[in-house]
Amino acid sequence: MSLTDLSTRLRDFAAARDWHQFHTPKNLAMALSGEAGELVSLFQWLTPEQAAAAMDDPGLAANVSDEIADVLIYLVRLADVLDVDLIKAANAKIDRNETRFPPVSRG
Amino acid sequence: MSLTDLSTRLRDFAAARDWHQFHTPKNLAMALSGEAGELVSLFQWLTPEQAAAAMDDPGLAANVSDEIADVLIYLVRLADVLDVDLIKAANAKIDRNETRFPPVSRG
Amino acid sequence: MSLTDLSTRLRDFAAARDWHQFHTPKNLAMALSGEAGELVSLFQWLTPEQAAAAMDDPGLAANVSDEIADVLIYLVRLADVLDVDLIKAANAKIDRNETRFPPVSRG
Amino acid sequence: MSLTDLSTRLRDFAAARDWHQFHTPKNLAMALSGEAGELVSLFQWLTPEQAAAAMDDPGLAANVSDEIADVLIYLVRLADVLDVDLIKAANAKIDRNETRFPPVSRG
Repeated sequence: MSLTDLSTRLRDFAAARDWHQFHTPKNLAMALSGEAGELVSLFQWLTPEQAAAAMDDPGLAANVSDEIADVLIYLVRLADVLDVDLIKAANAKIDRNETRFPPVSRG
Repeated sequence: MSLTDLSTRLRDFAAARDWHQFHTPKNLAMALSGEAGELVSLFQWLTPEQAAAAMDDPGLAANVSDEIADVLIYLVRLADVLDVDLIKAANAKIDRNETRFPPVSRG
Repeated sequence: MSLTDLSTRLRDFAAARDWHQFHTPKNLAMALSGEAGELVSLFQWLTPEQAAAAMDDPGLAANVSDEIADVLIYLVRLADVLDVDLIKAANAKIDRNETRFPPVSRG
Repeated sequence: MSLTDLSTRLRDFAAARDWHQFHTPKNLAMALSGEAGELVSLFQWLTPEQAAAAMDDPGLAANVSDEIADVLIYLVRLADVLDVDLIKAANAKIDRNETRFPPVSRG
């Protein structure tokens, strides 16, 4: 499934529940921020080593996967209501970063 | 371009700059949270109406697009280092939400 | 009780549980960010009017008060481990803002 | 200066600039979340050791102090408009945590 298909699924999901009234840019940005906070909280007390091994713990892995999904869901909804092409926006940013941060040369 | 291609581009970008050492789950979750904060800050003083019209203002539109890109970039990097399939994780979450939140019946 | 007394209470609370090992600046900044996310999530689907009346709903009021407390707790812990004087830092910032944002004149 | 005095200074500062119209609970929660994001971003690429020594670097120390101030400022404004007593709320939370997390016994 592509990101576009996911966006359509989420739009239909919201429409079927009369949620478009809640899915304003302000509210979706807040929801995204809240989910990013939940994601960061999963790692907050872990050492770097424990965080790197997070997916080896089935319970933690499920929570991480779930919170990553929530961030993506609200990001896709926000991009949809604002009519932002996510892939295009990301590539435009990486294009600029290519110039700002030249690769390390290895001689 | 697919989300998988974007993930590969970002992985190569980080590798070419020796940034993999920084791209740990803990650090990427922090970076994601920071970018979500920048995104939310673009809307914080706007009325709901002003926020809904954000993309009509070229300067604000560029900033919104840029911050949305940054959130996606760190989310894709985090999913890559944790080996989480973003689309699959999102669909699994929506599947569960279909049960938790039945559609509004009409008629 | 002053902010200094609160800081001492929190330091003693952490020490009595051997939590100082977890209370590093990185971890506390993450915890603060996570709690800020929980706080913002309480308001995300409310209209501006509903949010303004949040404290009239006893259940919501208790949650809001609780999340505000959590943000303060981690902010005070972070300032303590970094040896930042919270009141002094805030006043220094307001002093600068007085210059950046002159008051509205009323003629 | 007490937290109450800081709250009064911030209320007067906002009133003198006609900013009370912007300082709604929703907007202030967003602003707080945005500043928490800026704070976490200062630590995101640092090792735990570098983060622990953050205040030894004058430039970083100034930024950390500044972002901590911004979080406190919006937290105090939010508590003011919601009429939440910050110190009381924090102590109530710590009281509950005393029961939830008994101290480590050392025998």
